[in-house]
Amino acid sequence: MEEKEIKARIQAGRNFLRCDMKEDSSYQTDQQLKKTQPPLVKKRMRNAQIDLPVQFDSLDFVKTIPQLFRARKSSRVYTQEPISLLQLSWLLWATQGVKEIRGKAYATLRTVPSGGARHGFETYLLVQQVEGLAPGRYHYLPMEHALEYLGEIAGSAQIISDSLNGQSWGAKASVVFYWSVVPYRCEWRYGIDAHRVILMDVGHVGENLYLACAALGLGTCGVASFNEQCGNQLFELDGEEEYLIYTALVGTISRQNDEQEKSFYRFVQQQGL
Amino acid sequence: MEEKEIKARIQAGRNFLRCDMKEDSSYQTDQQLKKTQPPLVKKRMRNAQIDLPVQFDSLDFVKTIPQLFRARKSSRVYTQEPISLLQLSWLLWATQGVKEIRGKAYATLRTVPSGGARHGFETYLLVQQVEGLAPGRYHYLPMEHALEYLGEIAGSAQIISDSLNGQSWGAKASVVFYWSVVPYRCEWRYGIDAHRVILMDVGHVGENLYLACAALGLGTCGVASFNEQCGNQLFELDGEEEYLIYTALVGTISRQNDEQEKSFYRFVQQQGL
Repeated sequence: MEEKEIKARIQAGRNFLRCDMKEDSSYQTDQQLKKTQPPLVKKRMRNAQIDLPVQFDSLDFVKTIPQLFRARKSSRVYTQEPISLLQLSWLLWATQGVKEIRGKAYATLRTVPSGGARHGFETYLLVQQVEGLAPGRYHYLPMEHALEYLGEIAGSAQIISDSLNGQSWGAKASVVFYWSVVPYRCEWRYGIDAHRVILMDVGHVGENLYLACAALGLGTCGVASFNEQCGNQLFELDGEEEYLIYTALVGTISRQNDEQEKSFYRFVQQQGL
Repeated sequence: MEEKEIKARIQAGRNFLRCDMKEDSSYQTDQQLKKTQPPLVKKRMRNAQIDLPVQFDSLDFVKTIPQLFRARKSSRVYTQEPISLLQLSWLLWATQGVKEIRGKAYATLRTVPSGGARHGFETYLLVQQVEGLAPGRYHYLPMEHALEYLGEIAGSAQIISDSLNGQSWGAKASVVFYWSVVPYRCEWRYGIDAHRVILMDVGHVGENLYLACAALGLGTCGVASFNEQCGNQLFELDGEEEYLIYTALVGTISRQNDEQEKSFYRFVQQQGL
C-alpha cells in the first residue's frame, strides 16, 4: 500500500470517530421521514425454543462490587469444563436481556445502553460444553429470554479457530458468543450517523459480558479480529442487512494456568518492551 | 443531500463496521516497522496533582450482583447534590484505573479491556458539585490515580449544555466525563484497522461508568452527540492528535423524579409508537 493511501485511510478512520459528520442540515433520517420502523428483534429462525432459567440469585457470585471490577480481565487459557445452563442464561441476560418495552413496540430497554435504545444486535452462540444443551449453533431470543437451536456442527474446534482468523486458543471455550449487527435498526433513527454509535454500543455489550463472567469466576476474552464470512455462514446471516460485528470466548479457568496465560505476552519480555 | 450520496454514506458506514478492511497483505503497522511506541498516557498538563482516595470497600454499594445489572439505566434528571471525592475516585478507577503495567512500558492493564491493551483514551472532568474539589476543569492521571486541576470555569451550566449540542438537562450533573482519544496510541499497533476497535473500546469504558454508577445509586447517561470543538477547547485538545470521542453525565437522582424521567419519552405515547 502506498504511503499516500495509508495516510488517507488513517485520516478517514480518524474522521469516522468524530461526532460531527453531517454537513447538510436538510438531511432527514427515515424516522424523521416517518418511514416504517424495522422490528425490534430478528424474526425467529426456527419453530422450537428452549426457555432459559432465571434464578440468578442462586448463582455463586463474587462477594463485593470492588472485587467484581478488580477481577475483570481477559483470559485465553480454558480448562474445558462445562458451564451450567443457568450460568449461560445469566451471561445472555446480562449482555442483551430485555427489562422493559417502551411504547407498543418503539424500543426495548435492556441491561446495556444503546443510542436511542435501538439495540441493533443479535446474539448467536456456538456451544461446546454447556450442561443441558446439545453442542451446536444457537440464536438468542431476547424477548422470550430463550434460545433457538439452529443445528449441530461437526468439527467445532476447527470452526471456532477459523472464525477467529486462526486464533486456535479459542477452540477450548465452553461457548463462543458471536454478535451480529442489523444496521438498519439504528440507521432508521440515525441515518448516516448511525455507525459510530453502533460500535460504541457493541462495546457496551462486550463489557457487560466481561463483568458478568468476572462475577462468576468464568474466563472471557473479547475478540475483534474474526473472519466475517465464516461467522455469517455459520449463523445464516446474509452479510448485507446482518453481519458479524464482535465475538467473545467464554470458558472455565484455573489459577494453575496463570503461567500459560502469560505466554501470550512472551514477546514483551523477548523484545525488551 | 442527494439520495445517491446518502446511499454511499450509509454503505461506507456499514463497511466501516466490518472487520476485514485491509486488502493489501504487504501493509505493515508502525509496530511491525519497529517505530518508537508512543507514551502509554498523556504527559501531565500542570505541575500539581490531587491524589484520590481508594478505600472503595467503605462505599455504600448495591447488595448483590444481579441487583447491579438490573439497576443499570440511563438517568437524565439530577437532584444537584454533591457526590463525595471517594465516589468520584471509584468512578475514575472503574472506568480507566490501571491495575498493572506489562513490560517496562509496553501496556497498561486496566479495569476495562482495550484491543491490544492500547487504551487510547484520556479522561477529563467538568466538576460542578464534588465534595473537596473546586468546581472547574480536571484531567485524570491514571498512572497516579490522581487529578490535575486545569482551571476554573465561568458559567459551567451553559458550557455543559453547549458541549452537548444543547442538551440542557445535562447542566444539572454533579460532574461531566469527557473522554478524548489519542488515535496514534492505537494506530501504532493496528494502523488503518485501529479506528473500529477504538469505538468498541470507548464503549467498554462507557459501560463501566454505567455499572459503577448503578453500584452507588448514582444517575448517569452516556451521550454520543456532542460539540467536539467545544470540548476540545474546554480541555486544551489540539483536535488532530487528540479530540473528544464520548461524554457522560453523572448526577444524584431520586425516585421522586421518575415521572420527569419519563417526560423525555413523551413522544412515544404522543405518536402512538
